[in-house]
Formats: sequence, C-alpha cells, structure tokens
Amino acid sequence: MSVIFRKNLEKFITLNDQNFDEVLQYFDHKTIKKKQNLMEEGDYCSEIYFVEQGCLRMFFIKENGLEQTTEFAIEQWWMTDNFSFERRLPTTFYIQAVEPTTVLSINNDKREALFKIHPIMEQYFRMVYQRSYAASQRRIRYLYEFTREELYFHFEGQYPEFVQRIPQYMLASFLGFTPEYLSEIRSKRRS
Amino acid sequence: MSVIFRKNLEKFITLNDQNFDEVLQYFDHKTIKKKQNLMEEGDYCSEIYFVEQGCLRMFFIKENGLEQTTEFAIEQWWMTDNFSFERRLPTTFYIQAVEPTTVLSINNDKREALFKIHPIMEQYFRMVYQRSYAASQRRIRYLYEFTREELYFHFEGQYPEFVQRIPQYMLASFLGFTPEYLSEIRSKRRS
Repeated sequence: MSVIFRKNLEKFITLNDQNFDEVLQYFDHKTIKKKQNLMEEGDYCSEIYFVEQGCLRMFFIKENGLEQTTEFAIEQWWMTDNFSFERRLPTTFYIQAVEPTTVLSINNDKREALFKIHPIMEQYFRMVYQRSYAASQRRIRYLYEFTREELYFHFEGQYPEFVQRIPQYMLASFLGFTPEYLSEIRSKRRS
Repeated sequence: MSVIFRKNLEKFITLNDQNFDEVLQYFDHKTIKKKQNLMEEGDYCSEIYFVEQGCLRMFFIKENGLEQTTEFAIEQWWMTDNFSFERRLPTTFYIQAVEPTTVLSINNDKREALFKIHPIMEQYFRMVYQRSYAASQRRIRYLYEFTREELYFHFEGQYPEFVQRIPQYMLASFLGFTPEYLSEIRSKRRS
C-alpha cells in the first residue's frame, strides 16, 4: 500500500481498492541512501521514478568537471531522463538522492503492460506529462524574463519548502549561481 | 480530411477511417494570416493548436517592451500556453503566425468530450506531452551547458529547416541574442 501514490492518482483519476492494488503490483519499491545514485551516466534509462518520501536531484557533469543540477523532485513528483526512457537509450544524466529517499519505479515494458490492462493509467500519465510540460514552459520563460536575483526570489516564493530542505550549494547550482552569489543575495535581503 | 493530422496520430495510435472522421469533428479549422495573432495576452487560453501548414511562434512582452520569442511550431507540432489552458486562466503570452498558417484547434471542453468517446486519444495526447516534456528537459540542459555560440550551432544542426524558414531577428530573439550577434556568429563560420 502506498498512501501517497494513491493520493496522487486520485488528483486525476478514480480507482477502487482492487484496481489500485492491481496497479501497484506493476511498481517496485526502492530505498536510496543520501548521496546514492539511482541512475548514472551511461546507464540504460529504463525506469521512471515517483518520490514517496525524500528528495531526488538530476544533474549532469559539465565540461569543466562540475555537477550541474537541472531538476529536483520531492514527494509526489515523477523523475527520469524522459528522452532516454522513451527511446531506450543510455542516459547522459545522473539521478541522486539528496535525502534518504523511497521511490516507486516502473520500467517501460511494465508500463506498457499496465496501460493495456488499466487504460485509465493513460489518462493519469497524460495529466502528469501535461503538468510537467506546462511547468517547464513557464520555467523557460522565467530564464528569459528574470535577472538571476529575481529568479532566486521567485523560486523562494513559489517553493519555500525547497529552500529550507535543499543544501545551499545545490540550490545555487540549480539556479546557475555560485554559492557565494547566493549567500550575497540572501544577506542583502536580511540587511 | 486532414492528411497531416492523420499521419501524426498514426505515429502513436491506430484509428480506422470512421473513427478518424469522428475524431476530426471535434476540431475546428482556422486560417491565420502572416503576423496575425491567434492568441493575445489577457485572452482566456481555451484552445490548443495543431499546425497543419505554416509556422507559429509564442512570445511575451518583456518589461522593456520588446517581444521575447520562447517557442516555434511548424507542421505537426502542437502549441498553446499549457498552464493557462489547463487552469482556464487568461494567458500572458501571444501566439502569432510567422507565415500564412492553417491550424486545427480544439478547446478544453471539447477535448474532454473527445476523451470520453475516444479514450485512445488519451494515449495520443500522453505521447504528445511526453515528447514535449522530454524536449524541454533537454532544452533546459542546453541552456546550462552551451555557450550562446554553441547554442546556435546546435540549434542549426538539429533543426536546419527552421534556420532557413524563420526571419533572423526572430531566431536571434529565441536564442537570446541580438540580431547583430547572430550575424556575427554566422559570418565567422563562413570566413
């Protein structure tokens, strides 16, 4: 039983207890320690992950050897390298646990089988992707629209729980700052 | 009959002639002149558009009054402000025809009705959003990874037909360049 997954499904679709139990059987539970990688560059990205508890981040290694975080996922968020997942290709990203994390995972073949038996899951994933795409459409706009300082305050206003939870150097990387620049912005506001 | 829409549907799903005709009845045809707006800031963004012929761009007006292009859509691409479409809110974007364009459009209520009668369309739109989200995930990565010059050459390599079709000042805006910077990059390569 996964109360949080059921809660998430019920945002978009209705499933009775028996159908929910059947759907759940297509998923695996995984527990990841803090800083452990769930996926690494070169791996076949065959699974998609739903965060039940904890926090994941996705990053890639830049030419200068530094990690660049591109996404975070907390409870009820899905994460994978969608391009590699669909095309069954090796990924160029890493997915790592920021905190001790538990996820539900499903691979591409199992998900196809699930869609055949429970076609209502097409509607669920249509809504998941529709929202994810809408969010990234807005994110791209903000990258054009905001200064780096505005980007931070906007992010803080929209996701206050993140700013509390995530180490500052990861947040800085995600926003494209140095950690020094981030602490400068934050101290300016306090003064 | 819309040959190109059927071709696009058949990338993901199978529909016989009768079902395709039924599906098509939920859509309207619209013809938009070059530079005409299909959607403007403040409009209720109630429709989603499929380009049959031509080219659309999405932009917003920056604080300095300039237009910032964030997306293009050519044949077989879908476009809308997805956040406003789902939440039935006024949009903060414009959608404009770059060339004389014909689209198929469907509003939110009609699409819900279509999903009820032809649930296979859930699968189709799940795939449309899955790919769109995967593309924006990669686009966000490129914004972190590439210099502005690399961004241009990457875009040219991936979408050569765009670089031919789209006025240079729009392409420059989309890439976050001035038109002067774009012609500098292009002349550097030729030399």
